[in-house]
Amino acid sequence: LRDPDSIQGSLFAIGGREDRTRDKEVLRRFVALCGGADARLLVISTASRNPAPKVAEYEAAFRECGARKLVFAHPIDRRSARDSKLLEALDSATGVFFVGGNQLKLVTEIGGSELVRRLHVRHSAGLAVGGTSAGASALGAVMIARGKARSAARLSSLRMTPGFGLRSNLILDQHFRERDRFGRLLAAVLCNPTSLGLGLDEDTALLLEGDSRLSVMGKGSVTIVDGSKLEANDIGIVPEESPAAFVGMRLHVLTNGWSYDLAEGRVTRPVPVESGQE
Amino acid sequence: LRDPDSIQGSLFAIGGREDRTRDKEVLRRFVALCGGADARLLVISTASRNPAPKVAEYEAAFRECGARKLVFAHPIDRRSARDSKLLEALDSATGVFFVGGNQLKLVTEIGGSELVRRLHVRHSAGLAVGGTSAGASALGAVMIARGKARSAARLSSLRMTPGFGLRSNLILDQHFRERDRFGRLLAAVLCNPTSLGLGLDEDTALLLEGDSRLSVMGKGSVTIVDGSKLEANDIGIVPEESPAAFVGMRLHVLTNGWSYDLAEGRVTRPVPVESGQE
Repeated sequence: LRDPDSIQGSLFAIGGREDRTRDKEVLRRFVALCGGADARLLVISTASRNPAPKVAEYEAAFRECGARKLVFAHPIDRRSARDSKLLEALDSATGVFFVGGNQLKLVTEIGGSELVRRLHVRHSAGLAVGGTSAGASALGAVMIARGKARSAARLSSLRMTPGFGLRSNLILDQHFRERDRFGRLLAAVLCNPTSLGLGLDEDTALLLEGDSRLSVMGKGSVTIVDGSKLEANDIGIVPEESPAAFVGMRLHVLTNGWSYDLAEGRVTRPVPVESGQE
Repeated sequence: LRDPDSIQGSLFAIGGREDRTRDKEVLRRFVALCGGADARLLVISTASRNPAPKVAEYEAAFRECGARKLVFAHPIDRRSARDSKLLEALDSATGVFFVGGNQLKLVTEIGGSELVRRLHVRHSAGLAVGGTSAGASALGAVMIARGKARSAARLSSLRMTPGFGLRSNLILDQHFRERDRFGRLLAAVLCNPTSLGLGLDEDTALLLEGDSRLSVMGKGSVTIVDGSKLEANDIGIVPEESPAAFVGMRLHVLTNGWSYDLAEGRVTRPVPVESGQE
């Protein structure tokens, strides 16, 4: 399940609604990943329809997490996504962060732009890239653009589009447990189990270091849907409103401190703390 | 995952809200299993607080499905569960059916009674036993008595008690997709993966023939949670309000016409009908 491309940069995907005003544990980890006090962050708010309050909130939060150099950008078409100042900010950044909103707005407005093309190159060479909510969804090659909550795994429960494609082997979904999106993620993986499905809960982050080592931090869980061992699956032949049947899905749920090596399928768990219950 | 006890009788568990007034597909299958026109059904309504309307509805439905000999009983304590007429009805029945309501009412009022003791003996020898909703939940050895919907897999999301124990290796949950009970079933299986978790959607039935061959019929899905290959699991050591982490759960979803052999782990799917989409 390792990405076929060899990628040096870390990916940091958050399931939305991360704490931005109190402990800011998850954002603090992202800033540390990007160099802490030496971080130079480029924050892109294209997913948002009304970016000003979000920009203000992230500016305060990232500063409180120790970042000192911040550039905010709101490109909304290919033209503004090849602006030379923006590209310079990308070239000198130690981390790029996509805020939330609407992932389809994000990829339709700047997908395939010069900004995203260069982002690929720099991520492959080692640049950390993060995003929350819609900004997390957009990072994979296949993106869940829309979909029904509280659904069985059925084709009609999701609409997929191409994402930015920073990772070719991951499908990222967010607000996962909170909005009951398990069915749509299952359906996405059933459609062609070349990708690993990752369901991110709110205030929870997935860190993928290089192209293999995945670890989880924050309040909730990351649900991993692995179709690589599927034995049977009828989503391609049943009516799209019908629930799909399948056999042999593997399922993992990781919480704060757990990690998983995609290449080796090996788990590392946090050192258990005895709770005193007997 | 085969039941360690060798059981001859079929189990027929329905996820609740099965059609009782139109096609009655699921109830029709139960009547056929019990002998069709020769069926002698004993219908037990103990789970229900107000059984009269339910009894009337099932009487009409079972008759329209071709059953001619029906006995309805509403034992509500151990004394009424050893009534000689009731035990005679059990001895001559070709099928027993538990209606829905509250599964904890059902097992607390007649669990361990002479009726249930004899039901075990007759089921092992070949008697078909069915139930819907609470009446399905009560059939296993471990029962989900109560639990939170829309929850992650956490110990606080469910309360388990002993069930009737007709099957020692199954935990049955119902109204499964409709009430988003995946988390509580995962938690139940995590607690000790000796049992297979089975989540039954509404108007959907699971037929277990003997102790190995499981098949699905009806409108929805049956979700199978198989913890036998789990590699790691922390539900026993994290605070009970915290989501549990785990690695290596197997997950299957079966729909109408699919079957699964518990002993061999082998799937049989319905013959695909090409849908003409290209």
